[in-house]
Formats: sequence, C-alpha cells, structure tokens
Amino acid sequence: MIIIGEKINSTLKSIRPAMEARDKKAIQDLAILQFEAGASYIDVNAGMFYENELETLEWLINSIQEVCEAPFAIDSPNPKALLVGLKANKNSKPIINSITGEKERYDSVLPLILEYNTGIIALCMDDRGMPETVEERVEIANTLIKNLTHEGVKMDDIFIDPMIRPVGTGSQYGIVALETIRAVKNQYPDVHIACGLSNISFGIPARKVINQAFLIAAMTSGLDGAILDPLDKKLMTFLYAGEALLGKDDFCMNFITKFREGSLEV
Amino acid sequence: MIIIGEKINSTLKSIRPAMEARDKKAIQDLAILQFEAGASYIDVNAGMFYENELETLEWLINSIQEVCEAPFAIDSPNPKALLVGLKANKNSKPIINSITGEKERYDSVLPLILEYNTGIIALCMDDRGMPETVEERVEIANTLIKNLTHEGVKMDDIFIDPMIRPVGTGSQYGIVALETIRAVKNQYPDVHIACGLSNISFGIPARKVINQAFLIAAMTSGLDGAILDPLDKKLMTFLYAGEALLGKDDFCMNFITKFREGSLEV
Repeated sequence: MIIIGEKINSTLKSIRPAMEARDKKAIQDLAILQFEAGASYIDVNAGMFYENELETLEWLINSIQEVCEAPFAIDSPNPKALLVGLKANKNSKPIINSITGEKERYDSVLPLILEYNTGIIALCMDDRGMPETVEERVEIANTLIKNLTHEGVKMDDIFIDPMIRPVGTGSQYGIVALETIRAVKNQYPDVHIACGLSNISFGIPARKVINQAFLIAAMTSGLDGAILDPLDKKLMTFLYAGEALLGKDDFCMNFITKFREGSLEV
Repeated sequence: MIIIGEKINSTLKSIRPAMEARDKKAIQDLAILQFEAGASYIDVNAGMFYENELETLEWLINSIQEVCEAPFAIDSPNPKALLVGLKANKNSKPIINSITGEKERYDSVLPLILEYNTGIIALCMDDRGMPETVEERVEIANTLIKNLTHEGVKMDDIFIDPMIRPVGTGSQYGIVALETIRAVKNQYPDVHIACGLSNISFGIPARKVINQAFLIAAMTSGLDGAILDPLDKKLMTFLYAGEALLGKDDFCMNFITKFREGSLEV
C-alpha cells in the first residue's frame, strides 16, 4: 500500500495553530513521525489560510524538507499554490493532490504535472459535478486516464480517487465506491487507486470501525493507496492485516514483525 | 448475513466438559445467548465423543430445543450421527454440516438432505483431497451445485464452503479463498457462501484482527454466511459494519441501533 500521511493539513483543527504560529518543530516532528510510521508521502495542505496559502505552503515544505526526505503530496485546488510548492520542493518526486475532469482545473494543473514530472491524484468528478453512479465515475476515470497518458503521464504516476460519499447518506455509496475501484483497477492494472477513508463514515457513530472495515473492503476491491493517519495504530494494524490476507506479505512476515515490534494495536 | 453459531462444538475445550457432565443448563444457556446475539442457526457437534457421538448429539438437540427455537446446523461427517440428529430435531428446517464431493460421503449424506428437506453446507473438496487453486475449488463447487440441484435441492438451500487454508502457510490462500467466493457467488447468485473464519489466521499472532479483516474481505467478495462466535462483540461489530458498507443496511439504521443499544464493541 502507498500511504499518504494526512496529518499536516490546515483543515485539521489540531494542527492549524502550529501552522499559524509558524511552529517549525511541531510540523517537522509530525512529518518525521508519519514517515517513520510508514507514510510513503507527506501531504501538505495550507488551503484554510485563504490570505496567505502560498506563503504558508512554502513554509511547510521548506520546514519539513530540512529534516525529512519523504516526498510530498502537495495538496491544493489552487494552481498558484501548487506552483509555489513545486518550486520550493527539494525532496524526491512529489504528487500533486489533485486534478479533476473540470476543464478549467484540468487545464491549469496539467502543465505543472508535465513541467515538474509529478505523480497526480485525479478525482472522479468533472464539470457535471459529483457523479452518482459507478458508470459515471468509471467514465470520468477513463477520460482522465486517457487524457493524462496522451499527454505523456505514465500510468504508474496516476492515482485515481473514486470520491467516496458517506454511506450514512445513501446506502449504495459503499458499493458504488468499491465497484468503481474494482472496475478501474481491472481495466488499468498499472494505475493506482487511492482515496481518503474517513468520508465514508461521516454522520455515523463508531466511525473508526467503519473506516477500518472500509479500508479492508476497498483493499479487497483493488485500492493500493490511501490518504490516512499513519499514526493511527489500529488502522495501520488493519492495513497490514489486509496486505497479509491479499497475498502482499509473504508468509505474513511483515505482519508478524510489526506484531513483535509492538507496532500493532490488537 | 446468515450466522451459524459455532460454540456448541465438542472440539472446543471450553464447552466439552459441560457435554461430558451432561450439564443441560450450560448448553441451553449457550444456545439461547447465541440465538439472542443474532445466530440464525445453532451448530451442534459431538464429534469428539468417538464412543458415543450419536447419543451426545441427540442429548444436545433435545436439551436445546426444550428452550430455544433456533434451527440447528447438525455437524458431523458421520451419516449415522446426522440421522440421529435429524430424527431428534423438532425445530424448524435444519442445515446439515456437511457434505463434500467425496463419493462415499456424498452418497451417504444426500439421502438425508432429500428425506428431511434440509439445507446443506457443501465443502469444496473431493476424493482428490483438498484443492490447491481457485479453479479446482470452483470446479468442485460447480459439480456439487449441479449434482445437488439435479436431485431437487434448491439453490437457496446450498451453502458452499470454500475451505479456507491458513494464510500463514501460503501467502496465496487468502486470495484463493476470496476469488473462489467471488466466482461461485457470481455464477450462482442464489447459492449461499458460508465458511468458518478462524482457520485463515492459524499460526499467526493477533488472530482476532486477521479474522475481523478476513470477514470484511470475504463479505466484500460475496460471503453471505459465516460459522462464527456471535458472542464475540468485536467480530459482530465488524459484521454489522460490513453490512452497512455493502448496502445491506438501509441508512446504516441497524448499525446505529446496535450502537445505541450498546451491542457494539468500538
């Protein structure tokens, strides 16, 4: 699994004060902790700082790369912010989070992917809005993959996000997400499928259990990336269990090693 | 999900003394607790009493049906024991656990299914032994389903057990189980797929997490029955979470109700 550590995100109330106060050590520690806990990428988002998103994002990236070599997932809908982040970045190949099929956004983000040779998270939505059915999602994913690869982006650099909607607002949304994941992964085995998990459980009690179960269901359907909190030991325990069950952990040696190290929550 | 409560089983050391001592109250209580916790069937197994399996099984069934109306899963490889159980049974339509594709066993169990109009758990194995691949398992399942329905058994009365092998002894066994479940359920949507869960985690630490994750992975693949401990609140919490995620719980109302009742372990 490709893990994108989600914690350095200005929409999270727990970390925003450290960003406001320019508490470099707090940000650096949170990056290192996530990297050590298994994050392949560190997401950086300063979108809640409407007035100075660009400057905050640049500060985040500069602060983190002083102490942590993890590649970034540079997270903004704003191409100007993405450009500032890409210029600041000195770590290895980043991901842009994200592009969509919306014409204006697509046209403004695409040049950044190509110029900076980045990975790209592509959300299954377009100018018609958030799709309702599996078919609409798969159609948008197809269009995004075809257009991006036509421009020279490699399959392996594309991360399709099926856009999870809360199962508490529509009983079909779990199945819609899982069938979209399965269909896209079957058609494009080299493309990655990655998404945030927590939206699935919005509005339901015992959200953590729902998120843990959804991680396993999505991995079973073909998910090979996730935007999550790698410091959540229980969720990571399920992630390793999923890898063991899905033939991605030879003789369960990684799961057993993590258990012996005390890294699992059981 | 169709839940077959597994606890009244002579192979479990915790309950065997109560069977030996003919402690009727202990057996009755365990049946009632499982039924109240959501078991659709109560498995009864006296197979460890080699000398008097038949008499013990009869006593179990008579004791339980005095106080509990749950249908039985009558569990033995021995047709003589199955017959004694079927004759003793006064509760509603039972399941026989189990038949296989082994010629001698098939020929001796089939008449009991037909005479007593029972459901049947059919294990994916035959005279060649335990199959290794998905293809072999699906072939055996196909043969069992075709032969049983040819004799008049309804699709809806058949429970295919894919025969789970421990993922710790072969990294492919999780995938083999999940792909078998998916293939059989896709081909025969009216046939049930049911299995025990705990074999998957044999020999690995933190077995409960592996079993919980496997339940979700298997449900995602099409499992609609399980032989499990309905008194394991955490496992049942995952089962309800799986139903919510897979569109089998309208607006998650069952999950939310169980949460409010305090029936979940979160």
